[in-house]
Amino acid sequence: MRHITLEDIRLVIDKKSILAAVRTALIGNWKETHNSPPPTQLIFPSTDGRLKGDCHIKSATAITKCYFSIKIAAGFYDNPSQGYPVNSGLIFLMSSETGRPLAMIEDEGWLTAWRTAAAGALAAGCVPSNPETRLGIIGTGMQAELQAEWICSYLNLTKVSIFGRSNQNAHALVGRLEAKGIDCFVANSAAELCSKCHLIITTTPACEPILMNTDVLDGTHIVALGADSPGKQELDPILLQRAEQIIVDDASQCLDHGEFGHAHRLGLIGANDFITLGEILADTHYNPKESAITIADLTGLGAQDLEVAALVYSA
Amino acid sequence: MRHITLEDIRLVIDKKSILAAVRTALIGNWKETHNSPPPTQLIFPSTDGRLKGDCHIKSATAITKCYFSIKIAAGFYDNPSQGYPVNSGLIFLMSSETGRPLAMIEDEGWLTAWRTAAAGALAAGCVPSNPETRLGIIGTGMQAELQAEWICSYLNLTKVSIFGRSNQNAHALVGRLEAKGIDCFVANSAAELCSKCHLIITTTPACEPILMNTDVLDGTHIVALGADSPGKQELDPILLQRAEQIIVDDASQCLDHGEFGHAHRLGLIGANDFITLGEILADTHYNPKESAITIADLTGLGAQDLEVAALVYSA
Repeated sequence: MRHITLEDIRLVIDKKSILAAVRTALIGNWKETHNSPPPTQLIFPSTDGRLKGDCHIKSATAITKCYFSIKIAAGFYDNPSQGYPVNSGLIFLMSSETGRPLAMIEDEGWLTAWRTAAAGALAAGCVPSNPETRLGIIGTGMQAELQAEWICSYLNLTKVSIFGRSNQNAHALVGRLEAKGIDCFVANSAAELCSKCHLIITTTPACEPILMNTDVLDGTHIVALGADSPGKQELDPILLQRAEQIIVDDASQCLDHGEFGHAHRLGLIGANDFITLGEILADTHYNPKESAITIADLTGLGAQDLEVAALVYSA
Repeated sequence: MRHITLEDIRLVIDKKSILAAVRTALIGNWKETHNSPPPTQLIFPSTDGRLKGDCHIKSATAITKCYFSIKIAAGFYDNPSQGYPVNSGLIFLMSSETGRPLAMIEDEGWLTAWRTAAAGALAAGCVPSNPETRLGIIGTGMQAELQAEWICSYLNLTKVSIFGRSNQNAHALVGRLEAKGIDCFVANSAAELCSKCHLIITTTPACEPILMNTDVLDGTHIVALGADSPGKQELDPILLQRAEQIIVDDASQCLDHGEFGHAHRLGLIGANDFITLGEILADTHYNPKESAITIADLTGLGAQDLEVAALVYSA
């Protein structure tokens, strides 16, 4: 079994190759060349009832590959106070011919972070934007930073607003982004952010809505990344009813624990009221009305992990 | 992260400690101190439609532990012809406080094999036997050999019959068991085996029944180990209808893909017609009628993996 470290990974991948791998995975998931079984979600509550951490186990097979992947990715949100990063994890590749382990990729959660950033950028790009579009990011963690960087680079945007529960963390993130040449400011509320941004990315581990329907302007495209396990929720479910189009990475996952599922369980939308991101990526003719609300609900697919792990392994 | 190899494992475990760990896991699963989420099952068919291999991903948490486990175990049944063992695998222990990996146990599938052998022995011991009881084993693979050894040792039995699809493999297994002092012979059919054995263990990757109702004598106790993923089946479902008692390791897993599920889907038994193995192990007063058929349906629990991994890790 080959051991591949984060240092090895950094040497062989770049944004462009990850974007291509994630595009392949999302289209493969839609075309069913890739199979991502329902993930296992382990939830760890803290003693005060908050979400202390979660661990996702995601696997995938593909008819285009002679190996399959199993990914373990944990996020423990109090880790920074103990001097650890929030995320950790590993990806295994095993032979589809013998079941024997081929590689352990000790990515420490980074491939998950990058493939999530790539999916966010691809989903953000589903709806036309222009260089004047101001990108709104809710959340101040690692994924917030990655989304700002990846989307600005992918869509040639230069203006970003940040809103986070912690004003201090928001200012720190703005500082880091400005150092990278992104024109950036801190919004004092989600409502203020919504009033300036027609492209909004939510990146928090929230367990109740933080983006409210009444705050969101017509013509806004929302990419929701946080609801990747049961109990998590970032969007007012009314927003999904209002949306002209809901885009999902995987219908069954989104129905189980995504924003799509929250709205569906309330009877606000039907179980088939969606289009799959892979279908849009395979066919570039998607163009909603200018005033439409569009929402991409991303829960993260095993197939994405398989494709980015394959990228590393084959390099 | 600590790396623990099969060599390390062999130094610190013995049958007695594994039996105790598996008993703890089965009782914990029943008492809900342990949580084993639904496993992920990846199925790999061969080009001729047979089952080439499968990979199970099983995880578990326990309120008694400050870590959780994720086990990857693959079985690829044509491996011996390529010079590889059928089984391979790994178990991870991760902190329940930070999600960070604590240990990778490269057990090459052995802890799974041993914990399965232990569960088989515990299930075999649920019904009284005497030193004259002849143990019947269907299958000739590694698990068949382990079951013969573990059950003879656990229940003080000395007589074993073996039946397998390959007569050559059956004779080879008999030779190995006789060298270990077990009085052993090859049955020419499952029916012949049934006519001599009141304790029968099935250990095959069969996908259709090989133990038929009409062959099984009254007063037989059956432990079925093979049906650990969807599509696998070893028992004539009528046997489950005839049984006085069906014992399951986990009701939801057995209903999903065990022998219990096959019989339930045919309407032969109710979804609540079972007792849990952990309940029997916690309370030793179970004593069926002498003429009764009893069946233990074992699908293998993440909690078993957690407890045997904990045994290795703490040693």
